[in-house]
Amino acid sequence: MLEQINSPDDLKKLKNNEIKILAEDIRRFLVDSVSKTGGHLASNLGVVELTLALHTVFNTLEDKIVWDVGHQSYVHKILTDRKPQFHTIRQYKGISGFPKRYESPHDHFDTGHSSTSISAALGLASARDLNKDKYAVVAVIGDGALTGGMAFEALNHAGQSKKNLIVILNDNEMSISENVGGLSNYLNKIRTNTVYSKVKGDVENLITSIPAIGKTVIKTAGKAKDCIKYLFVPGALFEELGFKYIGPIDGHNYSEICKVLKSCKNIPGPILLHVMTQKGKGYALAEKFPDKFHGVNPFKIETGKPISSNKNITYSEVAGNTLVACAEKDKRVVAITAAMPGGTGLSPFAKRFPERFFDVGIAEQHAVTFAAGMAVSGYKPCFAVYSTFLQRAYDQVVHDVCLQNLPVIFLIDRAGLVGNDGETHHGSFDISFLSPVPNLTIMSPKNGWELEKMIEFAMQHHGPVAIRYPRGSAITMENSIKNPIALGKSEILYEGGNDAFIIAVGHMNAYALKICEELKEKSIGSTLCNFRFIKPMDETMLIKQVKNHKKVYVIEDNAKIGGVGSQIQALLNNYRILKEVNTIGLPDAFIEHGDVNTLYQLYGLSIEEIVNRITEDFASKNFKNIRIR
Amino acid sequence: MLEQINSPDDLKKLKNNEIKILAEDIRRFLVDSVSKTGGHLASNLGVVELTLALHTVFNTLEDKIVWDVGHQSYVHKILTDRKPQFHTIRQYKGISGFPKRYESPHDHFDTGHSSTSISAALGLASARDLNKDKYAVVAVIGDGALTGGMAFEALNHAGQSKKNLIVILNDNEMSISENVGGLSNYLNKIRTNTVYSKVKGDVENLITSIPAIGKTVIKTAGKAKDCIKYLFVPGALFEELGFKYIGPIDGHNYSEICKVLKSCKNIPGPILLHVMTQKGKGYALAEKFPDKFHGVNPFKIETGKPISSNKNITYSEVAGNTLVACAEKDKRVVAITAAMPGGTGLSPFAKRFPERFFDVGIAEQHAVTFAAGMAVSGYKPCFAVYSTFLQRAYDQVVHDVCLQNLPVIFLIDRAGLVGNDGETHHGSFDISFLSPVPNLTIMSPKNGWELEKMIEFAMQHHGPVAIRYPRGSAITMENSIKNPIALGKSEILYEGGNDAFIIAVGHMNAYALKICEELKEKSIGSTLCNFRFIKPMDETMLIKQVKNHKKVYVIEDNAKIGGVGSQIQALLNNYRILKEVNTIGLPDAFIEHGDVNTLYQLYGLSIEEIVNRITEDFASKNFKNIRIR
Repeated sequence: MLEQINSPDDLKKLKNNEIKILAEDIRRFLVDSVSKTGGHLASNLGVVELTLALHTVFNTLEDKIVWDVGHQSYVHKILTDRKPQFHTIRQYKGISGFPKRYESPHDHFDTGHSSTSISAALGLASARDLNKDKYAVVAVIGDGALTGGMAFEALNHAGQSKKNLIVILNDNEMSISENVGGLSNYLNKIRTNTVYSKVKGDVENLITSIPAIGKTVIKTAGKAKDCIKYLFVPGALFEELGFKYIGPIDGHNYSEICKVLKSCKNIPGPILLHVMTQKGKGYALAEKFPDKFHGVNPFKIETGKPISSNKNITYSEVAGNTLVACAEKDKRVVAITAAMPGGTGLSPFAKRFPERFFDVGIAEQHAVTFAAGMAVSGYKPCFAVYSTFLQRAYDQVVHDVCLQNLPVIFLIDRAGLVGNDGETHHGSFDISFLSPVPNLTIMSPKNGWELEKMIEFAMQHHGPVAIRYPRGSAITMENSIKNPIALGKSEILYEGGNDAFIIAVGHMNAYALKICEELKEKSIGSTLCNFRFIKPMDETMLIKQVKNHKKVYVIEDNAKIGGVGSQIQALLNNYRILKEVNTIGLPDAFIEHGDVNTLYQLYGLSIEEIVNRITEDFASKNFKNIRIR
Repeated sequence: MLEQINSPDDLKKLKNNEIKILAEDIRRFLVDSVSKTGGHLASNLGVVELTLALHTVFNTLEDKIVWDVGHQSYVHKILTDRKPQFHTIRQYKGISGFPKRYESPHDHFDTGHSSTSISAALGLASARDLNKDKYAVVAVIGDGALTGGMAFEALNHAGQSKKNLIVILNDNEMSISENVGGLSNYLNKIRTNTVYSKVKGDVENLITSIPAIGKTVIKTAGKAKDCIKYLFVPGALFEELGFKYIGPIDGHNYSEICKVLKSCKNIPGPILLHVMTQKGKGYALAEKFPDKFHGVNPFKIETGKPISSNKNITYSEVAGNTLVACAEKDKRVVAITAAMPGGTGLSPFAKRFPERFFDVGIAEQHAVTFAAGMAVSGYKPCFAVYSTFLQRAYDQVVHDVCLQNLPVIFLIDRAGLVGNDGETHHGSFDISFLSPVPNLTIMSPKNGWELEKMIEFAMQHHGPVAIRYPRGSAITMENSIKNPIALGKSEILYEGGNDAFIIAVGHMNAYALKICEELKEKSIGSTLCNFRFIKPMDETMLIKQVKNHKKVYVIEDNAKIGGVGSQIQALLNNYRILKEVNTIGLPDAFIEHGDVNTLYQLYGLSIEEIVNRITEDFASKNFKNIRIR
C-alpha cells in the first residue's frame, strides 16, 4: 500500500481498511529503515495514525503544521516526497531527522529543541490573519514538551489572542523517560476519567432537567454552565487559559481523529485537542521499552539489540557513576536533570539516592534556579544537561547561579559535535557563551579518568563550575599522565621539541597526541598541553611555552568566535606577547548532520587535516618570533 | 511609629491600630525617600501590609522569603535593619534596590529578573527537607511574573513535589504596564467572582443536602467533590497542578493576611495564596498612574513631576518612532514586546498599529520564537528587549531565528551599563553571547540618527539583525558625519594622526571623539573609527588602519571576554597581523550599581581614564610595529 502513496493527495482516495494496511506498512517501513540507519523510533511509531489523519484533513502545501521537537516527523516525511531518501536519514548529506524548510514545501518551521511549536504556530497564525488568509495552523506537541516554560508562555498568549490555532497535545505519558510534574498528574487524571466525555451529553440533559439543581446553583453562584464544564469536560486548565479543550481521543483511531480534526477546522479560536497515543505502537519491543527505543543506533529487528554494540563506558556514565561515588561520601551532593536521567547518565544516581535526585521535567530554566536555591542552603547541586539545552538556561546561569557565586556544578554533556542529530543539537557554543560569565570556572577533561577527577575537584570548589565533555565513549588513554587537578593549571602531555606548541581542549587531546606523533615523523617537534581549565586559564604555562615555541595551535570543538583560541590570544596580548595563535575550531556556521569523523574531516579538525595544516605552515618557513615589550 | 521599629521583632508587639499608623508611616517614608533617590515606588506602596504581615507571622532569620524580581522588597529592607541606609538606595556604595544576601541575614536569595522565585524557593524547601529542618519557605510573585515560563516550570515541579511551600501571588493586575494573556483573564475572572469564596460554605452544605444531586452526580461521574471545588473554589488551574489554592484575599487588610498566613503554616504541601493589592496604594498619583510610578527618577511629591526633567529624546524613543515610520511604509513591519511597551519605546507603535503590535507578557522565549513564526510568513518582526532580558531567550535566538536565518530584528535596549539597577540589569554580555551565533548581523549606533538608519538598514536586510544601544538620552552629535549604512562597513569619524587608532563601539564614539581631541592637545595624533558593525566586521578598514597606526585601542561597554576587542584581535591574527590591541571594556566581574559615569570612572571607561591610559602608553615609547607575514 505504501508504494502507492507518493504524496498526501493519494491518501485522500483510500478507504478506511486501506488506511489500516497503510499504517501497518508505514510501521514496517519505519522499523525496517530505522533499524538500519538508527534514529528516533518509538515516537514515530506512536504518531502514524495521527499523521495520516493530519494529511487527510489538511493540505500541508497550504495548511501549516509545526512539529514540536520534530523527531516525530518521520511519518510526515515519508508521506511528503521523502520516502525515496528516507534511507539516508540523519546521515551526512542525507535528509535530516528533523523538519527542515529547505527539504520540502510541506515543512513550515524547523524544530529540534522542545516546546517551541506553539510559539511558532501562533506567529504563523498571526501572520495569516494580518494577510487575511484562511489556512489552518497546527502545532503538534508532546505532553513532555508541554512542561517547558515557553510552551506555557505561548498558551498564555494564544489563549488571549483568540486566533484560530489547533494545538494537538500528543499525550503518550512520556518525554524520553517518564513524565513528571503536576501537569503530568493532571493529564493522567483526565485519561483515567474518560467516563467524563462519554457521559457528557447525558449528564447535561439530566442536570438541566432537575429543577432543584438548576435553580439552586444559578441562584447561589450564577455559574451552572461552568459547573457542568468542570464536572464533565476535562481540560479545565486549558479552558481557563482561553483554549477550547477537546478530548481525550484515541490517537490510534484514524477515522475518529479525522472526524474531530474536521470539526476543529470549523471551531473559531484556539483549540487544544488532546490525543492519546502509545509510544512504540506496533513494534512490541518499542511498546515495552519506549525509552530505549526513543533514539536508537542500528539494531536487529528480532531482538532489538544494537548491531554493533559499543561496550566502552561513555562520558555520561562516568559522570553519573562519579556523582554516585561523591554522593556516598558527601550528603550535600544532589543531582538534577531536565527529563533526561538516561541520556545524562543519572539513572544509577536516581536509583541509589531517590530523595537526592530531582527530575524537574523539560525545564532547564527552572532546573538551574532550583539548583541555585539548593546551593544557597549549603548543598552541592549537579545539573547534568546537554550543551545545546543549556542555552535554554543561560540567563539563570548568569543571574541566579554565577551572580551569587553559588557552588552549582554544571555537567555539560554532548559538548562539541554530536553527529547525526545535526545543527539543532551540536554543542558548538558553550565555551563562547559561558566564558564571559564572571565567577564561573570552566573545565574540559581529556578522558574519562579526568572527568572523574574534575567532578571531584568541583565538589570541593567554592563557586560555580562547568565541565564540558562530548557525546559517546570516554577516551581511556590508559597510559596517559595522571596529574592531580589544580585550579587553573594545565598539564603537558607530550614534549617533543620547540616547533609547534599545541594546546588542546578536552577530548581533542586524544587527537592531538596522535598529531604530535605524526608531526615527529615529519621532523616537526611539538609540545602538547592539555589545557584543562578554560577559565581561569593557566597564564604562567602559556607565557612560558609560547615563548619557547615557534608556532602556537589551539584545537577545540567549539565555535572559533569566543572560543579558547581567541581567549588565549587576548591573554597573551594583555602580557604584550604578540604571537600568531592558530585556532583550529568550528567555523562561523551551523554545522550539518553527519557522523562526527566526517564532520571533523570537513571542518579541518581531523588528525589528517590538522597534521597537513601544521606541516604546511612549517614548510613555508615563515616563522614568527615572540616579541615582548 | 516607624521610628520605634528597629527589627521585625518590634512589629509583633504592636496592636492593630498601631500597625495602621505604621503602614502610613512607611508609605510616607517610601514616597519621601524615593522622591529624593529615585527607584521603584508603586510596587512597594502596594505591598506594605503584605510585608508587615509576613514579618509578623514569619521570622525571616529562619523562615525564608524569596521576593520575585525583588524591586518590591523596599518595605522588607526598611523593616530589616536597613532603614538608616535607605537614603542611599541604588546609589554607588549604597544599598541595592534588590534583595542581596550580602546585605542582610534577612535576605535569602538574590533576585532582579522576573519569575525566578518559585524555582529558588522550591530549591530552598528541598534543601530544608533533606536537612529535616522545619522553617517556612515563601515566594512572593506578581501576577505579571507568573506569565514567565520558568514560573510555570516551577509550579509544575512544586505541584508534584508535595513540599511545604507558600507561593504568594501578589496580584495587582499589572506587570509594569497592564497584564496580558489567558492567565491574566483567568485571574480577573477569579477577582470578579469573589462571591464564590463567600458562599462556599453554604453551598457545600446545600449540595450535599439535596439527595437528587448527590446521587446523580456521583453515579454518573463519581466526582461530586470536584464539581463543588470547581464551582465554588476559584483557582482550579493551580489546584490541577497540585497546589492548594487559597484566596483571593484583600492585600491591604493586615489582620486578614496575618490570619490566613498563620493557617497556611499548618497546611501541608504547596499552597498558592492569592492576595489582591493595589500598585501605588496610598499615594494618589501612583494609584492613578501605576506604570509611571513603577520606576522613577527623583520627583516632586506634590506634582509627581521629575525634579530634573530630561527633555532629550531617548534611544528607546528613537527606536519606537523609527519603527512607526517604517511600519507606515511597509505593511510587513510588526513589533513585539515582552511586557515593556513603555520602557522599550513601543507605546506609539502600539497606539498607531494595534493589530501589528504584540505584547506577549513577561515571556522573552516565546517572544523570539513567535517572531520567528511571523518571519517565516514574510513579516519583519522587531522584538524590542533589554539586553539583560534577552539572555532569557538565548536558545530561541540561536535555534529558532538564526538557524533558519530569519529576518527578525532585535532592538537591544539597555546594552552596556544601566546604572542604578546594578548587577542584575547591566547589559554587559550581549556582544559576547551573540557574536558566536551564525547568520546574525550585529550593529551598534553612535547616536540617535544612526540608530534610525540602522533600523532602516535592518528592514531591508535578509537575515537576523541585532542592534544594541544604551539606556537613556540618545546622543545627538549634530555635526557628525552622516554616512549611509552599508553591510559590514565602519566609518572614520576623526582623522588627526597616526599614533593611536581608536575603534569605538556604539555610543562610546561620543566619548572617543572627545578623547581624540584631548589627545591632540597632548600631541598624540589619532584616528577614530565608528565600528558600526560588530558582525560582520569591516576587515578592509581594520587591516588598512591598523597598519598605519602605532597603537590600536578598542572602546566598548561590554565584557572584554568575547567582546569586540578580542574579536578584532582574532581577525588580525587570521591575516597574520600581529599588533597589540588594547581593549578598554568591562572587567570579568559583575558590576555593582551606581550612576554610569561613576562606574565608567571606576572601570577605566571615562574620558579622563582613557586619555590618561593612552597618554601613558605613548609616554613609555614602547611602540609596537606591525608585522605581516
